[in-house]
Amino acid sequence: MSSFGRVFRVTTFGESHCKAVGCVIDGCPPRLPLGDDDIQAQLSRRRPGQSSLTTSRDEPDGVTILSGTERGVTLGTPIALSVANEDQRPSDYAAMQAIPRPSHADYTYQAKYGVRASSGGGRASARETIGRVAAGAVAEKWLRLAYGIEIVAWVSSVGAVAMPSAVATLNTWTREQVDVNAVRCPDQATAERMAALIAECRDQSDSIGGVVSCVCRNVPVGLGEPVFDKLEAMLAQAMMSIPATKGFEIGSGFAGTEQRGSAHNDPFVLRPDGSSTLGTKTNKSGGVQGGISNGESIYFRVAFKPPATIGLPQTTAAFDGHETILEAKGRHDPCVVPRAVPIVEAMAALVLIEYVPLNQEKKEKR
Amino acid sequence: MSSFGRVFRVTTFGESHCKAVGCVIDGCPPRLPLGDDDIQAQLSRRRPGQSSLTTSRDEPDGVTILSGTERGVTLGTPIALSVANEDQRPSDYAAMQAIPRPSHADYTYQAKYGVRASSGGGRASARETIGRVAAGAVAEKWLRLAYGIEIVAWVSSVGAVAMPSAVATLNTWTREQVDVNAVRCPDQATAERMAALIAECRDQSDSIGGVVSCVCRNVPVGLGEPVFDKLEAMLAQAMMSIPATKGFEIGSGFAGTEQRGSAHNDPFVLRPDGSSTLGTKTNKSGGVQGGISNGESIYFRVAFKPPATIGLPQTTAAFDGHETILEAKGRHDPCVVPRAVPIVEAMAALVLIEYVPLNQEKKEKR
Amino acid sequence: MSSFGRVFRVTTFGESHCKAVGCVIDGCPPRLPLGDDDIQAQLSRRRPGQSSLTTSRDEPDGVTILSGTERGVTLGTPIALSVANEDQRPSDYAAMQAIPRPSHADYTYQAKYGVRASSGGGRASARETIGRVAAGAVAEKWLRLAYGIEIVAWVSSVGAVAMPSAVATLNTWTREQVDVNAVRCPDQATAERMAALIAECRDQSDSIGGVVSCVCRNVPVGLGEPVFDKLEAMLAQAMMSIPATKGFEIGSGFAGTEQRGSAHNDPFVLRPDGSSTLGTKTNKSGGVQGGISNGESIYFRVAFKPPATIGLPQTTAAFDGHETILEAKGRHDPCVVPRAVPIVEAMAALVLIEYVPLNQEKKEKR
Amino acid sequence: MSSFGRVFRVTTFGESHCKAVGCVIDGCPPRLPLGDDDIQAQLSRRRPGQSSLTTSRDEPDGVTILSGTERGVTLGTPIALSVANEDQRPSDYAAMQAIPRPSHADYTYQAKYGVRASSGGGRASARETIGRVAAGAVAEKWLRLAYGIEIVAWVSSVGAVAMPSAVATLNTWTREQVDVNAVRCPDQATAERMAALIAECRDQSDSIGGVVSCVCRNVPVGLGEPVFDKLEAMLAQAMMSIPATKGFEIGSGFAGTEQRGSAHNDPFVLRPDGSSTLGTKTNKSGGVQGGISNGESIYFRVAFKPPATIGLPQTTAAFDGHETILEAKGRHDPCVVPRAVPIVEAMAALVLIEYVPLNQEKKEKR
Repeated sequence: MSSFGRVFRVTTFGESHCKAVGCVIDGCPPRLPLGDDDIQAQLSRRRPGQSSLTTSRDEPDGVTILSGTERGVTLGTPIALSVANEDQRPSDYAAMQAIPRPSHADYTYQAKYGVRASSGGGRASARETIGRVAAGAVAEKWLRLAYGIEIVAWVSSVGAVAMPSAVATLNTWTREQVDVNAVRCPDQATAERMAALIAECRDQSDSIGGVVSCVCRNVPVGLGEPVFDKLEAMLAQAMMSIPATKGFEIGSGFAGTEQRGSAHNDPFVLRPDGSSTLGTKTNKSGGVQGGISNGESIYFRVAFKPPATIGLPQTTAAFDGHETILEAKGRHDPCVVPRAVPIVEAMAALVLIEYVPLNQEKKEKR
Repeated sequence: MSSFGRVFRVTTFGESHCKAVGCVIDGCPPRLPLGDDDIQAQLSRRRPGQSSLTTSRDEPDGVTILSGTERGVTLGTPIALSVANEDQRPSDYAAMQAIPRPSHADYTYQAKYGVRASSGGGRASARETIGRVAAGAVAEKWLRLAYGIEIVAWVSSVGAVAMPSAVATLNTWTREQVDVNAVRCPDQATAERMAALIAECRDQSDSIGGVVSCVCRNVPVGLGEPVFDKLEAMLAQAMMSIPATKGFEIGSGFAGTEQRGSAHNDPFVLRPDGSSTLGTKTNKSGGVQGGISNGESIYFRVAFKPPATIGLPQTTAAFDGHETILEAKGRHDPCVVPRAVPIVEAMAALVLIEYVPLNQEKKEKR
Repeated sequence: MSSFGRVFRVTTFGESHCKAVGCVIDGCPPRLPLGDDDIQAQLSRRRPGQSSLTTSRDEPDGVTILSGTERGVTLGTPIALSVANEDQRPSDYAAMQAIPRPSHADYTYQAKYGVRASSGGGRASARETIGRVAAGAVAEKWLRLAYGIEIVAWVSSVGAVAMPSAVATLNTWTREQVDVNAVRCPDQATAERMAALIAECRDQSDSIGGVVSCVCRNVPVGLGEPVFDKLEAMLAQAMMSIPATKGFEIGSGFAGTEQRGSAHNDPFVLRPDGSSTLGTKTNKSGGVQGGISNGESIYFRVAFKPPATIGLPQTTAAFDGHETILEAKGRHDPCVVPRAVPIVEAMAALVLIEYVPLNQEKKEKR
Repeated sequence: MSSFGRVFRVTTFGESHCKAVGCVIDGCPPRLPLGDDDIQAQLSRRRPGQSSLTTSRDEPDGVTILSGTERGVTLGTPIALSVANEDQRPSDYAAMQAIPRPSHADYTYQAKYGVRASSGGGRASARETIGRVAAGAVAEKWLRLAYGIEIVAWVSSVGAVAMPSAVATLNTWTREQVDVNAVRCPDQATAERMAALIAECRDQSDSIGGVVSCVCRNVPVGLGEPVFDKLEAMLAQAMMSIPATKGFEIGSGFAGTEQRGSAHNDPFVLRPDGSSTLGTKTNKSGGVQGGISNGESIYFRVAFKPPATIGLPQTTAAFDGHETILEAKGRHDPCVVPRAVPIVEAMAALVLIEYVPLNQEKKEKR
């Protein structure tokens, strides 16, 4: 299904070449100040054509609020958001109808549905993420106003080019620092090497993978659920639902499996802020214990594979089974992680808002 | 909440020291042959006290089917499964009431609920997973009978001791091969080094992490959903909902981020079995493309941190904020991965059965 | 929330005076032929301004399919449907801001949300039902093509003017017969008395209630769930979610409580159609037994109160508590049942499609 | 499915003759004082064998709390409740295996599942309602402690014997007043006529229907949802999910359809209690406007058909189609409404608790 969340429920719609893509948000609290600008900022960070490192499909991706607000505030009713599809070149894709692109969704969609959009990725297109980013921007605004929660993601590796561990673990990045370069890696020296690698892959009609890191700050203690809906489990679902993801880890992650408990445990300490609450000396847990937030920063990493659509010729089988050579046309990103940054942030916001009491309703005893 | 699944919905119940733990399965198809033995086998692989490498808490964990079957077949009605808690030593835990165990759920449960079970992990105890394993055994039997699906997990690393990559990627392990040693690593030489490491940690009153790998074979093409409920996303949620997990990766995973698309893509080939269907030459995708199964084996890896409960003294803060030294009593595993194997298998079964048409109902046109 | 259904999930959006109203359908099977016309027919039966018996607000209510179809068939992806709000006269409602209309939702919305749309009913406006009718038209088309299911509703009473019981229980009405008059009562003599009563109430600036009856024919045996999601329970929820409803009954309904079991039971008989299946001699059950369809026609009745918005002056309290006299302006229906007919049909379709195997997915064993 | 509720989610299990019936409550707030007695009181009002007017199946129906509480308070974790099936006489039912009982669920279960419990009603047995009543008792206690909400149901008609309207509309009944006679009609003169009618039907091996009325007092303003989950819609689903129900009406109900708006509207008045809040002069709305509670008492009525299982011989078809005469053995109620009273109360509580903020979690900002 195309819905996420039980409380702040987002349903996205739209294929790569239909009239519009967007979403409906059901459950947004009332009385939240909300205008197009609140949503557009993140959409513009996601949109194609931002730099020479991304796809040349150029879309303004301007959002329209169809319902759910009046006089600049939310009404507590469903918020429908719509973004027109403008730059359509279905003919680019016509040749690919007979040949499922390797590691793309053509084959599995056909198997599941018995039909698929004739052009581009259809519903598997990255354009589906527009609805996510739009909804995430609304969630994020509410979380920021209500709790001061900050969510910042950045590119921590492209191919084998990774941020040095000393800077990679910093917890103070802002979106402004992340956006100083087109790669969205806040360490400038690393960013330059990443950009060079992406440009190289682009020029070779190839693609490359990468990792996006994300931190959520000022998350209150006690958010989460103890069993199937653990906070880290829902973050994992949310992130692994983003196209092209292959892995998720929180806190110490896979590296933590090599440690001993005596080194890995996060001892409690009295917070120095006079709040009489406990914090932890280290944060191997990544801000979550037993599925519930402990008040420390939540940080996690998401693995993105190299984009499946490449310009290089590929030997593969057509739907009818005969071996052929596929040469993809169309426009595509040589590396998705720069544009994935706002998508990761959006999904993080959509997870967190599920666990926060929304105070949506004023209920008074008689 | 304590429910997983929308179609084959499992609700688990029970704390470490209440009368019983178990689950209710709502949505199991009718006419499935089912007896205690079908469930007990996996419960016995999960139970404590199996070897010197696991906790010494000794529970037979015998299951009782309270409802939902008659004359050895399921009725299509809810199946309630119950396992008595027998070996209760709450006094072991009394000293820990004032001090939240580092990296355990004591602190976050108290913050969320304002109350917690007085002994052991309460709901955060590994005993919660009994209900999962019992339900997973039912799902697995149905998947095996209906589709021939096989799910096999094993321990692929303990600490830094990992299976050699040549054997780690084999796709032919059986549960019998996995169970030849107490560690549940089917590569005997590696298993011995793992066992030695676990014994060392146990003897030092410390703990160690590890990785469980899992493969699902004979999964039909076309299972999954394209957006938020992608097959890999639900697997990620399911696995990250198991206690002590810190990471999940499918197919090429984090390592895949370093590859180029031209090397990472899985070319299609005509299956040699005469079925006129397509397979892939390689399987970097891990059996899933665009959220939907492609007919290849699904394989993934789950990271488990070192158990938080250790015998070594730990300097930490009590709930009231004063620094103290915690020396944990109680019984605990020095390494969870051997007992996590059937839990990973159970959760994989609970995910797969969500996507398979259950043919639960005979609906005839008039 | 604004979603209905778990399998064919409909989310409606839109207030009386925002840019658009509509819905997203998530879960519609692929390969269903679908165009605007399929949806427009029922929207036009619902739209205001059809006759002198309904509100004079005049809206064409033309629908646009934003996503989910290509070349005239559904893709299995979310179908977003949008209808522009054109005839907006918010100033009609300005005077009512300080005074909650008696038996309307003004007071409870304000209590729940702390804010409400400044004009008309906002989300409580009958325009919310546009999304339902649009989605219901899609569901209905699928049910008709797949099973030959027919859903027909009609007005069986207005005020105390009721169809004679001899004709009221007929099971053969078609929509064409229902639509022969503006009241949508297929018994012409009764319809004329109903129209006169509605006109009288309209001329007196008053309003009147009524009952809509509905029959679902050719429903296969075995649809439903045995406990909380009984077919009759979901029909009850669906119908009582329509604005202005006060009651629901199925089969013998309230009158059946006065009967004895020996008279009320429906004996089984062999169907005369050679199908070797059982039918029932009578149909007091209304086509449902134990929550599950038995193959007989499902019929039920829905009670609609007189519209709360009337032109007559009403003595009531303002929000601030002082007694005042409210004289409503704006345009409103003197009786909702003629326009409620397609809404009842739509909700019936949305319930039935939840229980039917959608065959949405082609899953092949390897 | 066998689950009700999204926030306070109840899953019932058990057939008429398996080991146990009961439920799991997922989402009950922590720190609620709860013991067996809180649950047993309502179970005893529901149990068979209470008087000569009910079935002679005699079950103590003693409840066991398997999980979710410690030291007499809830932990916020799932509460599993179990009641053993003791009085089993499956042989009573053996003769009925070949013949579906008219207006019972035998035929539809067989059609849906292809199998059914060999004895009694299986899952369609009234014993399924034990889990509902147990869960409802927990919900009710929470609602009473948190809001002072009172829920009282009573029998308002049996066959054509109805309470005089003057007393039927009273809003002050207590459970003690309801329980003064075996019929559970608080008007003693009417109760005697009802008892005589039930005894007559019992003696004639026949059965009779009836109506249960229910009032919910002290419900805060603002509970509910405006569209598909309207408070009255969920009440309708909940009530129509009780076995043997055929109708539901709230407030003025079907009778209200005959009124004009000017007479039916409930004018607002300042509450005389000094609270500066509004009430309504009349309560035709039944405490709900636009799907949301308005602070007035919620009252509704539920129609129960005559029990399908009667001792009189019935001419009907066997599963194989041949006409035969069925003479039911087994024990059954001549009229279900006296025992339905606590079931209606339980379902009302399960609906209301869905809309109330549960304050389940203590979430503190850092």
